[in-house]
Amino acid sequence: MYAAPLQRLIGELSKLPGIGTRTAQRLAFHILRVQDEDAYALALAIREVKEKIGLCEECFNLAEGPRCPICQDARRDPTLLCVVEEPADVFPIERTHEWSGRYHVLGGALSPIDAVDEEDLKIAELYDRVQRDGVKEVVVATNPTTTGEATALHVAAGIHQRAAHVNVTRLASGLPVGADLEYADELTLGRAFAGRRTL
Amino acid sequence: MYAAPLQRLIGELSKLPGIGTRTAQRLAFHILRVQDEDAYALALAIREVKEKIGLCEECFNLAEGPRCPICQDARRDPTLLCVVEEPADVFPIERTHEWSGRYHVLGGALSPIDAVDEEDLKIAELYDRVQRDGVKEVVVATNPTTTGEATALHVAAGIHQRAAHVNVTRLASGLPVGADLEYADELTLGRAFAGRRTL
Repeated sequence: MYAAPLQRLIGELSKLPGIGTRTAQRLAFHILRVQDEDAYALALAIREVKEKIGLCEECFNLAEGPRCPICQDARRDPTLLCVVEEPADVFPIERTHEWSGRYHVLGGALSPIDAVDEEDLKIAELYDRVQRDGVKEVVVATNPTTTGEATALHVAAGIHQRAAHVNVTRLASGLPVGADLEYADELTLGRAFAGRRTL
Repeated sequence: MYAAPLQRLIGELSKLPGIGTRTAQRLAFHILRVQDEDAYALALAIREVKEKIGLCEECFNLAEGPRCPICQDARRDPTLLCVVEEPADVFPIERTHEWSGRYHVLGGALSPIDAVDEEDLKIAELYDRVQRDGVKEVVVATNPTTTGEATALHVAAGIHQRAAHVNVTRLASGLPVGADLEYADELTLGRAFAGRRTL
């Protein structure tokens, strides 16, 4: 029904996560309506992000050159590592200003169902870093999900086996700030009880 | 915080309608994760839609060449015109299979607040077509909004003035199929009463 280039754009847009056909149509008509320069700026930004951004050779976070800004920053303690699943997880942690160490991005979580095993993640590289850099603490900040928890246990065991002195910790799990007990799910509330602290 | 190309992509994505910063971040990280070919296909589709799609010189619908497929289709009756605001309005009407005539896309609706007046829309071109093609009926299918209604009245008066014999009609306004009377707004329900038909 639509002209072929428009149909192609709708098709490409609807491959994006959370974008259904109706939204893709709306976005495509918007792109048709805006100034050429604005549309070309978007197209160029998509190309450039693929061309210019790679992974840091040290921590596998996103980087414009061989190393990311955090690994380049001498003030960040290289003996403290925070292990996350994805590059997108680094920014929310940075925003808390609670972490002065470095990161290690695994590139996912262990998941037998999705055929993701140890070789698909940067786990060997993590063990190398821990041994090489004299790491003192590893905070395993994988997601509090089934796969994230499994990955955390696996990584913790692997580190203890290779470097028994390293303190391996996990982020606290419990009620989010501002939550209402009445609506908390039983798993989260259970975790909150298990992790209760003395006032 | 993010690398500059990523920040630029997030900025460009968040200019799209209905895409906030969080969604733009999610989409940008998705684009970073997918295969290069998929990202480039999206970038190319954006460029091509701007380069290859223009407006039909006859009806101002979207067209890949000088004329849209509907104006090229000899089976579509040129003496029946359906007037819509935007190219995006043509597709939903085509989907009903209720209309065998042609279209005329105004490019918007009259709106003194937004400084859109007759010269900004393809209204003179509509009058020309009506007189030139021996049009018998014009269905004014502008939106049932304040500006759409005003445009419909304006266009109807203009056509009557120039070609008194032309039958100018307006789409029925009333309860949408599947609606619940209890939740209908009073304007729509009022329209439904005013437009009641004998069973």
